[in-house]
Amino acid sequence: MRNLKVIMAYRGTAYHGYQRQDNAVTVQETVEKCVSRVLNTPTEIIGCSRTDTGVHAREYCFSVKTDREIPVRNFVRGVNGYLPSDITLLSCEDVSEDFHARYSCRGKEYIYLIHNSECRNPFAEDLQYHYRRKMDLELMRRAAEYFVGTHDFSSFCSQASEKTNTVRTVNSLTIDKDGDLVTVTISGDGFLYNMVRIIVGTLLWVNEGKIKPEDIPEIMKKSDRTCAGKTAQAHGLYLNRVFY
Amino acid sequence: MRNLKVIMAYRGTAYHGYQRQDNAVTVQETVEKCVSRVLNTPTEIIGCSRTDTGVHAREYCFSVKTDREIPVRNFVRGVNGYLPSDITLLSCEDVSEDFHARYSCRGKEYIYLIHNSECRNPFAEDLQYHYRRKMDLELMRRAAEYFVGTHDFSSFCSQASEKTNTVRTVNSLTIDKDGDLVTVTISGDGFLYNMVRIIVGTLLWVNEGKIKPEDIPEIMKKSDRTCAGKTAQAHGLYLNRVFY
Repeated sequence: MRNLKVIMAYRGTAYHGYQRQDNAVTVQETVEKCVSRVLNTPTEIIGCSRTDTGVHAREYCFSVKTDREIPVRNFVRGVNGYLPSDITLLSCEDVSEDFHARYSCRGKEYIYLIHNSECRNPFAEDLQYHYRRKMDLELMRRAAEYFVGTHDFSSFCSQASEKTNTVRTVNSLTIDKDGDLVTVTISGDGFLYNMVRIIVGTLLWVNEGKIKPEDIPEIMKKSDRTCAGKTAQAHGLYLNRVFY
Repeated sequence: MRNLKVIMAYRGTAYHGYQRQDNAVTVQETVEKCVSRVLNTPTEIIGCSRTDTGVHAREYCFSVKTDREIPVRNFVRGVNGYLPSDITLLSCEDVSEDFHARYSCRGKEYIYLIHNSECRNPFAEDLQYHYRRKMDLELMRRAAEYFVGTHDFSSFCSQASEKTNTVRTVNSLTIDKDGDLVTVTISGDGFLYNMVRIIVGTLLWVNEGKIKPEDIPEIMKKSDRTCAGKTAQAHGLYLNRVFY
Protein backbone atom coordinates (compact mmCIF):
# COMPACT_ATOMS: atom_id res chain seq x y z
CA MET A 1 0.00 0.00 0.00
CA ARG A 2 1.41 3.42 -0.94
CA ASN A 3 1.22 6.32 1.47
CA LEU A 4 1.19 9.82 -0.04
CA LYS A 5 2.13 13.00 1.81
CA VAL A 6 0.35 15.92 0.17
CA ILE A 7 0.75 19.66 0.75
CA MET A 8 -2.10 22.01 -0.18
CA ALA A 9 -3.12 25.65 0.22
CA TYR A 10 -6.64 26.86 0.71
CA ARG A 11 -8.59 30.02 1.25
CA GLY A 12 -10.98 29.14 4.08
CA THR A 13 -13.60 31.82 3.45
CA ALA A 14 -16.16 29.58 1.78
CA TYR A 15 -15.72 26.57 4.07
CA HIS A 16 -17.00 25.55 7.48
CA GLY A 17 -13.50 24.66 8.52
CA TYR A 18 -11.35 21.72 7.52
CA GLN A 19 -13.06 18.74 9.13
CA ARG A 20 -15.91 16.86 7.48
CA GLN A 21 -19.40 17.61 8.84
CA ASP A 22 -22.83 16.33 7.99
CA ASN A 23 -24.52 19.60 7.18
CA ALA A 24 -21.88 21.99 5.91
CA VAL A 25 -19.30 22.21 3.14
CA THR A 26 -15.78 21.64 4.45
CA VAL A 27 -12.30 21.50 2.98
CA GLN A 28 -11.87 17.81 3.81
CA GLU A 29 -15.05 16.75 2.04
CA THR A 30 -14.25 18.91 -0.99
CA VAL A 31 -10.73 17.48 -1.32
CA GLU A 32 -11.85 13.89 -0.67
CA LYS A 33 -14.36 14.10 -3.52
CA CYS A 34 -11.64 15.18 -5.97
CA VAL A 35 -9.07 12.68 -4.66
CA SER A 36 -11.67 9.91 -4.96
CA ARG A 37 -12.33 10.85 -8.58
CA VAL A 38 -8.64 10.74 -9.46
CA LEU A 39 -8.01 7.47 -7.58
CA ASN A 40 -11.28 6.10 -8.90
CA THR A 41 -12.41 4.79 -5.52
CA PRO A 42 -13.95 6.39 -2.40
CA THR A 43 -10.95 7.66 -0.43
CA GLU A 44 -10.47 9.25 2.98
CA ILE A 45 -7.68 11.70 3.64
CA ILE A 46 -5.95 12.23 7.00
CA GLY A 47 -5.45 15.92 7.78
CA CYS A 48 -2.73 17.34 10.01
CA SER A 49 -5.10 19.57 11.92
CA ARG A 50 -8.58 21.02 12.14
CA THR A 51 -9.01 24.62 11.07
CA ASP A 52 -12.00 26.81 11.90
CA THR A 53 -14.50 28.42 9.55
CA GLY A 54 -12.77 31.21 7.60
CA VAL A 55 -9.24 30.18 8.60
CA HIS A 56 -6.78 29.72 5.71
CA ALA A 57 -3.82 27.43 5.09
CA ARG A 58 -0.68 28.13 3.09
CA GLU A 59 0.92 24.71 3.57
CA TYR A 60 -1.54 22.19 4.98
CA CYS A 61 -0.46 18.54 5.04
CA PHE A 62 -2.66 15.51 4.56
CA SER A 63 -1.79 11.88 3.98
CA VAL A 64 -3.69 9.38 1.89
CA LYS A 65 -3.27 5.66 1.33
CA THR A 66 -3.75 4.14 -2.09
CA ASP A 67 -2.76 1.10 -4.15
CA ARG A 68 -3.00 3.01 -7.45
CA GLU A 69 0.20 3.43 -9.43
CA ILE A 70 -0.42 7.02 -10.48
CA PRO A 71 2.78 9.15 -10.57
CA VAL A 72 2.73 11.84 -7.86
CA ARG A 73 2.90 14.65 -10.42
CA ASN A 74 -0.16 13.34 -12.23
CA PHE A 75 -1.95 12.98 -8.90
CA VAL A 76 -1.36 16.69 -8.15
CA ARG A 77 -2.45 17.76 -11.64
CA GLY A 78 -5.46 15.48 -11.66
CA VAL A 79 -6.80 16.58 -8.27
CA ASN A 80 -6.11 20.26 -9.09
CA GLY A 81 -8.12 19.81 -12.25
CA TYR A 82 -11.20 18.97 -10.17
CA LEU A 83 -10.65 21.29 -7.20
CA PRO A 84 -12.38 24.68 -6.97
CA SER A 85 -10.21 27.79 -7.30
CA ASP A 86 -9.86 28.34 -3.54
CA ILE A 87 -8.04 25.05 -2.87
CA THR A 88 -4.89 23.88 -4.64
CA LEU A 89 -2.47 21.00 -4.13
CA LEU A 90 1.14 22.18 -4.07
CA SER A 91 3.10 18.93 -3.91
CA CYS A 92 2.90 15.20 -3.29
CA GLU A 93 5.49 12.57 -2.39
CA ASP A 94 5.57 8.89 -1.47
CA VAL A 95 6.39 8.37 2.20
CA SER A 96 6.72 5.34 4.45
CA GLU A 97 3.57 3.54 5.49
CA ASP A 98 3.81 4.66 9.11
CA PHE A 99 3.66 8.36 8.21
CA HIS A 100 0.46 9.91 9.59
CA ALA A 101 -0.30 13.58 8.82
CA ARG A 102 -1.64 14.15 12.33
CA TYR A 103 0.30 11.83 14.65
CA SER A 104 3.68 12.26 12.93
CA CYS A 105 3.46 16.05 13.21
CA ARG A 106 6.25 17.54 15.36
CA GLY A 107 5.12 21.13 15.24
CA LYS A 108 3.20 23.83 13.42
CA GLU A 109 3.60 27.44 12.43
CA TYR A 110 0.69 29.85 12.17
CA ILE A 111 0.68 33.42 10.91
CA TYR A 112 -1.89 36.08 11.69
CA LEU A 113 -2.14 38.95 9.18
CA ILE A 114 -3.27 42.40 10.29
CA HIS A 115 -3.95 45.26 7.87
CA ASN A 116 -3.07 48.18 10.14
CA SER A 117 -4.46 51.33 8.58
CA GLU A 118 -7.34 53.74 8.97
CA CYS A 119 -8.51 52.64 5.52
CA ARG A 120 -9.65 49.18 4.49
CA ASN A 121 -7.58 47.13 2.06
CA PRO A 122 -9.93 46.39 -0.86
CA PHE A 123 -7.65 43.52 -1.98
CA ALA A 124 -7.54 41.65 1.32
CA GLU A 125 -11.09 41.38 2.54
CA ASP A 126 -11.36 37.97 4.26
CA LEU A 127 -7.56 37.62 4.06
CA GLN A 128 -6.32 40.14 6.64
CA TYR A 129 -7.83 41.43 9.86
CA HIS A 130 -8.42 45.18 9.57
CA TYR A 131 -7.18 46.99 12.68
CA ARG A 132 -7.42 50.78 12.70
CA ARG A 133 -5.59 51.77 15.90
CA LYS A 134 -1.94 52.68 15.94
CA MET A 135 0.21 49.70 16.91
CA ASP A 136 3.10 49.88 19.38
CA LEU A 137 5.06 46.91 18.08
CA GLU A 138 7.81 47.21 20.70
CA LEU A 139 5.24 46.96 23.47
CA MET A 140 3.55 44.00 21.79
CA ARG A 141 6.90 42.27 21.30
CA ARG A 142 7.62 42.61 25.01
CA ALA A 143 4.30 40.88 25.69
CA ALA A 144 5.01 38.23 23.06
CA GLU A 145 8.16 37.10 24.89
CA TYR A 146 6.08 35.84 27.83
CA PHE A 147 4.34 33.28 25.61
CA VAL A 148 7.56 31.65 24.43
CA GLY A 149 8.47 28.46 26.30
CA THR A 150 6.52 25.63 27.92
CA HIS A 151 3.40 26.84 29.73
CA ASP A 152 -0.09 25.84 30.74
CA PHE A 153 -2.12 27.68 28.09
CA SER A 154 -5.58 26.95 29.55
CA SER A 155 -6.28 30.70 29.85
CA PHE A 156 -5.71 30.89 26.10
CA CYS A 157 -8.04 28.10 25.08
CA SER A 158 -11.75 28.25 24.25
CA GLN A 159 -14.04 26.43 26.64
CA ALA A 160 -15.21 24.15 23.87
CA SER A 161 -11.87 22.38 24.07
CA GLU A 162 -11.92 19.07 25.87
CA LYS A 163 -8.18 18.53 25.99
CA THR A 164 -7.10 17.61 29.48
CA ASN A 165 -3.45 18.40 28.96
CA THR A 166 -3.25 22.13 28.32
CA VAL A 167 0.55 22.42 28.50
CA ARG A 168 2.15 23.43 25.20
CA THR A 169 5.53 24.71 24.05
CA VAL A 170 5.71 27.87 21.96
CA ASN A 171 9.08 27.97 20.16
CA SER A 172 8.83 31.49 18.82
CA LEU A 173 6.40 34.37 18.56
CA THR A 174 7.46 37.29 16.37
CA ILE A 175 5.77 40.42 15.08
CA ASP A 176 6.91 41.99 11.79
CA LYS A 177 5.72 45.01 9.85
CA ASP A 178 5.91 45.68 6.12
CA GLY A 179 4.04 48.84 5.14
CA ASP A 180 0.48 48.49 6.43
CA LEU A 181 0.81 44.74 6.92
CA VAL A 182 1.64 43.39 10.37
CA THR A 183 2.43 39.67 10.57
CA VAL A 184 2.33 37.74 13.83
CA THR A 185 4.19 34.42 13.44
CA ILE A 186 3.92 31.71 16.08
CA SER A 187 5.40 28.25 16.05
CA GLY A 188 5.13 25.48 18.59
CA ASP A 189 4.70 21.78 19.21
CA GLY A 190 0.91 22.02 19.21
CA PHE A 191 -1.92 24.44 19.81
CA LEU A 192 -5.12 24.30 21.85
CA TYR A 193 -8.49 25.24 20.39
CA ASN A 194 -8.43 28.95 19.38
CA MET A 195 -5.06 29.37 21.12
CA VAL A 196 -3.39 31.43 18.39
CA ARG A 197 -6.40 33.70 17.97
CA ILE A 198 -6.67 34.29 21.74
CA ILE A 199 -2.94 35.06 21.98
CA VAL A 200 -3.31 37.58 19.12
CA GLY A 201 -6.37 39.09 20.83
CA THR A 202 -4.36 39.39 24.05
CA LEU A 203 -1.48 41.10 22.21
CA LEU A 204 -4.02 43.61 20.87
CA TRP A 205 -5.25 44.18 24.43
CA VAL A 206 -1.68 45.00 25.37
CA ASN A 207 -1.52 47.45 22.46
CA GLU A 208 -4.72 49.10 23.67
CA GLY A 209 -3.41 49.49 27.21
CA LYS A 210 -6.01 47.16 28.72
CA ILE A 211 -3.27 45.01 30.19
CA LYS A 212 0.51 45.34 30.48
CA PRO A 213 3.10 42.90 29.09
CA GLU A 214 4.01 41.99 32.66
CA ASP A 215 0.43 40.86 33.29
CA ILE A 216 0.74 37.87 30.95
CA PRO A 217 2.36 35.44 33.47
CA GLU A 218 -0.42 36.23 35.97
CA ILE A 219 -3.10 35.56 33.33
CA MET A 220 -1.41 32.24 32.54
CA LYS A 221 -1.37 31.23 36.20
CA LYS A 222 -5.09 31.83 36.61
CA SER A 223 -6.08 29.14 34.06
CA ASP A 224 -9.13 31.25 33.30
CA ARG A 225 -10.14 32.04 29.74
CA THR A 226 -12.03 35.17 30.84
CA CYS A 227 -8.78 36.87 31.92
CA ALA A 228 -7.23 36.80 28.45
CA GLY A 229 -8.03 38.99 25.42
CA LYS A 230 -10.75 38.45 22.84
CA THR A 231 -10.49 35.68 20.27
CA ALA A 232 -9.15 37.51 17.20
CA GLN A 233 -11.24 37.08 14.05
CA ALA A 234 -10.73 33.92 12.02
CA HIS A 235 -10.01 35.49 8.64
CA GLY A 236 -6.55 36.80 9.62
CA LEU A 237 -5.29 33.33 10.57
CA TYR A 238 -3.26 30.97 8.35
CA LEU A 239 -1.79 27.58 9.09
CA ASN A 240 1.56 28.45 7.53
CA ARG A 241 3.71 25.31 7.83
CA VAL A 242 3.66 21.88 9.42
CA PHE A 243 6.84 20.21 10.67
CA TYR A 244 7.58 16.46 10.59
CA MET B 1 -15.23 76.77 -4.72
CA ARG B 2 -13.00 74.12 -3.17
CA ASN B 3 -11.27 71.55 -5.34
CA LEU B 4 -10.41 68.23 -3.68
CA LYS B 5 -7.77 65.81 -4.93
CA VAL B 6 -8.70 62.32 -3.73
CA ILE B 7 -6.70 59.07 -3.92
CA MET B 8 -8.54 55.75 -3.78
CA ALA B 9 -7.88 52.03 -4.24
CA TYR B 10 -10.30 49.57 -5.74
CA ARG B 11 -10.59 45.93 -6.64
CA GLY B 12 -12.10 46.02 -10.12
CA THR B 13 -13.53 42.49 -10.19
CA ALA B 14 -17.14 43.44 -9.55
CA TYR B 15 -17.22 46.52 -11.79
CA HIS B 16 -17.65 47.17 -15.48
CA GLY B 17 -14.63 49.44 -15.41
CA TYR B 18 -14.23 52.90 -13.99
CA GLN B 19 -16.36 55.06 -16.25
CA ARG B 20 -20.08 55.58 -15.70
CA GLN B 21 -22.39 53.62 -18.05
CA ASP B 22 -26.11 53.41 -18.41
CA ASN B 23 -26.58 49.69 -17.95
CA ALA B 24 -23.76 48.44 -15.75
CA VAL B 25 -22.31 49.08 -12.31
CA THR B 26 -19.07 51.05 -12.49
CA VAL B 27 -16.56 52.43 -10.01
CA GLN B 28 -17.37 56.04 -10.90
CA GLU B 29 -21.09 55.66 -10.30
CA THR B 30 -20.52 53.78 -7.03
CA VAL B 31 -18.14 56.45 -5.71
CA GLU B 32 -20.29 59.35 -6.90
CA LYS B 33 -23.29 58.01 -4.99
CA CYS B 34 -21.29 57.91 -1.76
CA VAL B 35 -19.62 61.29 -2.34
CA SER B 36 -23.04 62.79 -3.06
CA ARG B 37 -24.41 61.45 0.22
CA VAL B 38 -21.53 62.92 2.21
CA LEU B 39 -21.65 66.29 0.43
CA ASN B 40 -25.45 66.18 0.55
CA THR B 41 -25.86 67.16 -3.10
CA PRO B 42 -25.58 65.30 -6.44
CA THR B 43 -21.89 65.44 -7.27
CA GLU B 44 -19.78 64.40 -10.23
CA ILE B 45 -16.19 63.28 -9.83
CA ILE B 46 -13.42 63.68 -12.42
CA GLY B 47 -11.30 60.57 -12.77
CA CYS B 48 -7.68 60.46 -13.92
CA SER B 49 -8.28 57.60 -16.32
CA ARG B 50 -10.64 54.93 -17.54
CA THR B 51 -9.95 51.39 -16.43
CA ASP B 52 -11.44 48.28 -18.02
CA THR B 53 -13.70 45.65 -16.47
CA GLY B 54 -11.75 43.65 -13.89
CA VAL B 55 -8.76 46.03 -13.79
CA HIS B 56 -7.73 47.23 -10.32
CA ALA B 57 -6.26 50.44 -8.94
CA ARG B 58 -3.90 50.88 -6.02
CA GLU B 59 -3.70 54.70 -6.19
CA TYR B 60 -6.36 56.13 -8.46
CA CYS B 61 -6.83 59.90 -8.42
CA PHE B 62 -10.07 61.81 -8.88
CA SER B 63 -10.91 65.44 -8.28
CA VAL B 64 -14.20 66.85 -7.08
CA LYS B 65 -15.47 70.40 -6.64
CA THR B 66 -17.55 71.40 -3.68
CA ASP B 67 -18.52 74.43 -1.61
CA ARG B 68 -19.02 72.35 1.56
CA GLU B 69 -16.73 73.12 4.50
CA ILE B 70 -16.19 69.51 5.53
CA PRO B 71 -12.62 68.78 6.75
CA VAL B 72 -10.76 66.46 4.34
CA ARG B 73 -10.31 63.79 7.02
CA ASN B 74 -14.05 63.68 7.68
CA PHE B 75 -14.68 63.52 3.94
CA VAL B 76 -12.50 60.38 3.66
CA ARG B 77 -14.11 58.75 6.69
CA GLY B 78 -17.61 59.68 5.61
CA VAL B 79 -17.27 58.37 2.06
CA ASN B 80 -15.51 55.20 3.27
CA GLY B 81 -18.42 54.62 5.61
CA TYR B 82 -20.76 54.32 2.62
CA LEU B 83 -18.44 52.59 0.12
CA PRO B 84 -18.54 48.82 -0.42
CA SER B 85 -15.56 46.80 0.79
CA ASP B 86 -13.86 46.67 -2.62
CA ILE B 87 -13.36 50.45 -2.90
CA THR B 88 -11.64 52.64 -0.32
CA LEU B 89 -10.51 56.25 -0.22
CA LEU B 90 -6.90 56.58 0.94
CA SER B 91 -6.43 60.35 1.18
CA CYS B 92 -7.86 63.74 0.29
CA GLU B 93 -6.36 67.22 0.08
CA ASP B 94 -7.42 70.70 -0.99
CA VAL B 95 -5.77 71.73 -4.26
CA SER B 96 -5.93 74.80 -6.49
CA GLU B 97 -9.06 75.31 -8.56
CA ASP B 98 -7.28 74.61 -11.86
CA PHE B 99 -6.24 71.07 -10.81
CA HIS B 100 -7.97 68.49 -13.01
CA ALA B 101 -7.43 64.78 -12.29
CA ARG B 102 -7.27 63.95 -16.00
CA TYR B 103 -5.77 66.99 -17.73
CA SER B 104 -3.22 67.81 -15.01
CA CYS B 105 -1.85 64.26 -15.11
CA ARG B 106 1.82 64.13 -16.19
CA GLY B 107 2.22 60.39 -16.16
CA LYS B 108 1.03 57.03 -14.87
CA GLU B 109 2.48 53.81 -13.58
CA TYR B 110 0.82 50.43 -14.08
CA ILE B 111 1.81 47.07 -12.65
CA TYR B 112 0.87 43.67 -14.02
CA LEU B 113 0.97 40.77 -11.53
CA ILE B 114 1.70 37.24 -12.71
CA HIS B 115 1.47 34.19 -10.44
CA ASN B 116 4.09 32.01 -12.13
CA SER B 117 3.61 28.46 -10.88
CA GLU B 118 2.18 25.15 -11.98
CA CYS B 119 -0.35 25.47 -9.15
CA ARG B 120 -3.01 28.13 -8.76
CA ASN B 121 -2.79 30.69 -5.96
CA PRO B 122 -6.03 30.27 -3.98
CA PHE B 123 -5.53 33.69 -2.38
CA ALA B 124 -5.13 35.68 -5.59
CA GLU B 125 -7.92 34.62 -7.90
CA ASP B 126 -8.95 37.77 -9.83
CA LEU B 127 -5.85 39.55 -8.48
CA GLN B 128 -2.98 37.89 -10.36
CA TYR B 129 -2.77 36.32 -13.79
CA HIS B 130 -1.89 32.63 -13.47
CA TYR B 131 0.85 31.66 -15.91
CA ARG B 132 2.15 28.08 -15.75
CA ARG B 133 5.12 28.09 -18.15
CA LYS B 134 8.64 28.72 -16.97
CA MET B 135 9.63 32.35 -17.41
CA ASP B 136 12.98 33.47 -18.82
CA LEU B 137 13.12 36.88 -17.17
CA GLU B 138 16.42 37.86 -18.77
CA LEU B 139 14.98 37.25 -22.22
CA MET B 140 11.83 39.20 -21.36
CA ARG B 141 13.90 42.07 -19.95
CA ARG B 142 15.83 42.29 -23.22
CA ALA B 143 12.49 42.61 -25.02
CA ALA B 144 11.25 45.16 -22.47
CA GLU B 145 14.09 47.54 -23.30
CA TYR B 146 12.73 48.07 -26.81
CA PHE B 147 9.54 49.61 -25.43
CA VAL B 148 11.32 52.29 -23.42
CA GLY B 149 11.46 55.68 -25.12
CA THR B 150 9.16 57.62 -27.43
CA HIS B 151 7.52 55.42 -30.05
CA ASP B 152 4.41 55.06 -32.17
CA PHE B 153 2.53 52.39 -30.21
CA SER B 154 -0.28 51.80 -32.69
CA SER B 155 0.67 48.09 -32.96
CA PHE B 156 0.07 47.89 -29.21
CA CYS B 157 -3.36 49.48 -29.16
CA SER B 158 -6.76 47.84 -29.51
CA GLN B 159 -8.69 48.72 -32.63
CA ALA B 160 -11.47 50.18 -30.51
CA SER B 161 -9.21 53.12 -29.77
CA GLU B 162 -9.97 56.29 -31.71
CA LYS B 163 -6.92 58.26 -30.69
CA THR B 164 -5.28 59.77 -33.71
CA ASN B 165 -1.96 60.43 -32.04
CA THR B 166 -0.52 57.06 -31.11
CA VAL B 167 2.93 58.29 -30.08
CA ARG B 168 3.66 57.77 -26.38
CA THR B 169 6.72 57.83 -24.14
CA VAL B 170 7.47 54.87 -21.90
CA ASN B 171 9.85 55.97 -19.14
CA SER B 172 10.59 52.56 -17.72
CA LEU B 173 9.53 48.93 -18.03
CA THR B 174 10.90 46.52 -15.43
CA ILE B 175 10.26 42.89 -14.54
CA ASP B 176 10.80 41.69 -10.95
CA LYS B 177 10.35 38.33 -9.29
CA ASP B 178 9.59 37.54 -5.65
CA GLY B 179 8.92 33.84 -5.11
CA ASP B 180 6.09 32.87 -7.47
CA LEU B 181 5.08 36.48 -8.08
CA VAL B 182 6.36 38.27 -11.17
CA THR B 183 5.65 42.00 -11.37
CA VAL B 184 5.84 43.95 -14.61
CA THR B 185 6.02 47.69 -13.88
CA ILE B 186 5.57 50.24 -16.64
CA SER B 187 5.49 54.01 -16.37
CA GLY B 188 4.97 56.61 -19.06
CA ASP B 189 3.34 59.87 -20.01
CA GLY B 190 0.17 58.18 -21.18
CA PHE B 191 -1.15 54.89 -22.49
CA LEU B 192 -3.33 53.91 -25.43
CA TYR B 193 -6.34 51.62 -25.05
CA ASN B 194 -5.15 48.18 -23.80
CA MET B 195 -1.54 49.21 -24.40
CA VAL B 196 -0.15 47.80 -21.15
CA ARG B 197 -2.01 44.51 -21.53
CA ILE B 198 -0.82 44.11 -25.15
CA ILE B 199 2.79 44.87 -24.17
CA VAL B 200 2.55 42.23 -21.41
CA GLY B 201 1.04 39.76 -23.88
CA THR B 202 3.90 40.48 -26.28
CA LEU B 203 6.48 39.92 -23.52
CA LEU B 204 4.84 36.53 -22.89
CA TRP B 205 5.12 35.75 -26.61
CA VAL B 206 8.83 36.46 -26.32
CA ASN B 207 9.01 34.08 -23.36
CA GLU B 208 7.25 31.41 -25.39
CA GLY B 209 9.67 31.82 -28.31
CA LYS B 210 6.96 33.02 -30.70
CA ILE B 211 8.97 36.16 -31.37
CA LYS B 212 12.46 37.36 -30.44
CA PRO B 213 13.30 40.51 -28.47
CA GLU B 214 14.88 41.95 -31.62
CA ASP B 215 11.52 41.63 -33.44
CA ILE B 216 9.89 44.34 -31.31
CA PRO B 217 11.14 47.35 -33.36
CA GLU B 218 9.83 45.73 -36.55
CA ILE B 219 6.41 45.12 -34.93
CA MET B 220 6.33 48.77 -33.87
CA LYS B 221 7.12 49.97 -37.38
CA LYS B 222 4.27 47.98 -38.90
CA SER B 223 1.56 49.88 -36.99
CA ASP B 224 -0.48 46.70 -37.09
CA ARG B 225 -2.17 45.36 -33.97
CA THR B 226 -2.24 41.82 -35.39
CA CYS B 227 1.58 41.61 -35.30
CA ALA B 228 1.80 42.04 -31.51
CA GLY B 229 1.00 39.53 -28.75
CA LYS B 230 -2.37 38.78 -27.20
CA THR B 231 -4.05 41.25 -24.87
CA ALA B 232 -3.14 39.89 -21.41
CA GLN B 233 -6.10 39.25 -19.13
CA ALA B 234 -7.53 42.22 -17.25
CA HIS B 235 -7.37 40.86 -13.71
CA GLY B 236 -3.55 41.06 -13.48
CA LEU B 237 -3.51 44.80 -14.21
CA TYR B 238 -3.37 47.61 -11.62
CA LEU B 239 -3.19 51.36 -12.09
CA ASN B 240 -0.44 51.77 -9.51
CA ARG B 241 0.29 55.50 -9.33
CA VAL B 242 -0.59 58.75 -11.08
CA PHE B 243 1.91 61.59 -11.36
CA TYR B 244 1.06 65.32 -11.31
